[in-house]
Amino acid sequence: MKLGLLVADKPCSSFAAVFTRNAFPGHPVVLARQRMQQATMQGVVVNNKISNVGAPGGLQHAIELSAEASHLLDIPQDALFAASTGIIGWSLPVNDMKAAMPALVEGLGSLTAVDFAQAIMTTDRYPKLRCQTLGAGSILGVAKGAGMIEPNMGTMLVFIVTDIHIDRDLLQPLLSRVVEQTFNSISIDSDQSTSDMCMLFSSSMHHGVAVADFEAALIEVCKDLAADIVRNGEGTSHVLRCSVKGFGDLCRSAGKAIINSPLVKTAMYGNDPNVGRIVAALGDFWGNAGKSLDASALFIRLQGIEVMTRGVFHLDAKGEQQLSAALKQAAQDPAIGSFPEHEHFVDLEIELQGGAGQATVYGSDLGYEYVRENADYRS
Amino acid sequence: MKLGLLVADKPCSSFAAVFTRNAFPGHPVVLARQRMQQATMQGVVVNNKISNVGAPGGLQHAIELSAEASHLLDIPQDALFAASTGIIGWSLPVNDMKAAMPALVEGLGSLTAVDFAQAIMTTDRYPKLRCQTLGAGSILGVAKGAGMIEPNMGTMLVFIVTDIHIDRDLLQPLLSRVVEQTFNSISIDSDQSTSDMCMLFSSSMHHGVAVADFEAALIEVCKDLAADIVRNGEGTSHVLRCSVKGFGDLCRSAGKAIINSPLVKTAMYGNDPNVGRIVAALGDFWGNAGKSLDASALFIRLQGIEVMTRGVFHLDAKGEQQLSAALKQAAQDPAIGSFPEHEHFVDLEIELQGGAGQATVYGSDLGYEYVRENADYRS
Repeated sequence: MKLGLLVADKPCSSFAAVFTRNAFPGHPVVLARQRMQQATMQGVVVNNKISNVGAPGGLQHAIELSAEASHLLDIPQDALFAASTGIIGWSLPVNDMKAAMPALVEGLGSLTAVDFAQAIMTTDRYPKLRCQTLGAGSILGVAKGAGMIEPNMGTMLVFIVTDIHIDRDLLQPLLSRVVEQTFNSISIDSDQSTSDMCMLFSSSMHHGVAVADFEAALIEVCKDLAADIVRNGEGTSHVLRCSVKGFGDLCRSAGKAIINSPLVKTAMYGNDPNVGRIVAALGDFWGNAGKSLDASALFIRLQGIEVMTRGVFHLDAKGEQQLSAALKQAAQDPAIGSFPEHEHFVDLEIELQGGAGQATVYGSDLGYEYVRENADYRS
Repeated sequence: MKLGLLVADKPCSSFAAVFTRNAFPGHPVVLARQRMQQATMQGVVVNNKISNVGAPGGLQHAIELSAEASHLLDIPQDALFAASTGIIGWSLPVNDMKAAMPALVEGLGSLTAVDFAQAIMTTDRYPKLRCQTLGAGSILGVAKGAGMIEPNMGTMLVFIVTDIHIDRDLLQPLLSRVVEQTFNSISIDSDQSTSDMCMLFSSSMHHGVAVADFEAALIEVCKDLAADIVRNGEGTSHVLRCSVKGFGDLCRSAGKAIINSPLVKTAMYGNDPNVGRIVAALGDFWGNAGKSLDASALFIRLQGIEVMTRGVFHLDAKGEQQLSAALKQAAQDPAIGSFPEHEHFVDLEIELQGGAGQATVYGSDLGYEYVRENADYRS
């Protein structure tokens, strides 16, 4: 088990967080929701391997661990959040974790953000950090896990720090909006963890930055972290970027239905331009939403090549070979152990002409590595 | 490509059908919806390999093929439905199919229901027929495909014949009810084909059977066919039977969320009693439905062993070994090439005490075979 600790020099009066919507949240999420009511918070203590969900006495364990770290840091005992990721149902080894904390606290001064990003890594292939500067200040985001792409841990944890002041009243809705467009627009296998959280702390050192500018910079940080999360996952060889236009308020849901379709995902894995599966997944979602589809307005492009025009496919053997070659180009060798050598995407574009709305979602393919990772876990 | 033909001796004035809700239905589905308005129908002509969806001139092809078979049978040219299953987007080789029809029609007299069930097989491991007798009559059902378990074809086709008369006004709502409880309660990979259909024809030879008795017998036929469909699929080693109680109108949706969770499915494949994933999938669904969960009322059993009591897991190494052994017992060797040697299930029971509602859904695990089957298809 690894422990990570993120602490601001002083209490932060401006902080915000977005939590999983899972109706069976982990005990750290329950505790964090309570502590969001406080006037100030100062950081978070994180562990991996065991997620502290549905375990006997789990809430008390989260309280004890954050209190122990706070005690060693000489700050109020409720000044830290707790975050956990790992197996659901097991109990945390609280005493062992407490025993490891003095060394963690002592090391704080000599550690960097990269060290923190590495400390919360599990089977992540590389630490995930993204930074944007804005005037005199900056925004730094660190992420672990991969939604459910990294299902051993099954959790996405994102911690963002900034020295730019934004009023707390504005910061929370701002973070919620940004998360919707970024982390909530990725999906690896449609499972939402019990423990997902995204937290933002501001030291409020720099005032006077326009909120809109801050939001734009935060979107960049989070969008790149979100793509990193998808690209990072073990077993992912293709990152799907699906743009959906014209389906009104349901563009994002329609896109997720496509990137979550096991048939679409396995086809992409196999570099198989089986575009019929895209329209099947779209029609499945749209029909179950009770909507009818004017197929004559439907256009589909894969890697920039139009495969459906006004609801009719035009496929031939040569075109399919071209598409298959384009998919192979976009693949990432899952055997690469370090930072990915490229940032390719498989671009799916779905357009219903004459309709409103637009969304872009990110997903992964589904291959043998995903099964190996998830079926062989523990057993 | 294979062709199958199902024809009644005389026109049936009592028939019913349920079609895919996919908003991009195949051309045979579009044609069949039109012909459901007719006073009588007499049967269906079926092909595999190409599903006739989104193809240029596809509706005309379906009309031509059913007319050609009707012409050879000397019945009205619109007396047959058409059904197709296979790759989406390609065009049917209509002329070759017409050329094959005389032999098909000539062979009709010497063929049995088993022959028909075999004719519509694709990668099915065995023909799927189920029969119930009722008074002097009987109900015979034949199925192909496996929802999406057999994604090469990607389609479930079910044809049911009976010599028991039920008024057509009653037959359609009756079939719809039965399909909800049976075929619409299975899910292999959450993809709903563009071409799914379930049709029932009555020759009306035997009158006087009570509608409730007919419905009960039809449920038995369809429930067993539905389980066969899940069990049959290539790549399925565990059939999941998930019973959900106490979640009101959402019991079936909650159960589907669990059996469609890739993390639950891969765990079952690996004989891994990772029960935390069950509660994560349930909480994900329930939270996204905007509901809160009283965890203290939640009980979960796996293979009859209670793993969660009042919202708290009680797992230990010995218990997990027992569960893993029970999962291994329930596995079916996917290498078995013929009729399965057993009819085992993995039983998941989810109960929210004090709540209303109950549903049972059936699903499959997710293993290497599924990926192989779907990723290597065509490419």
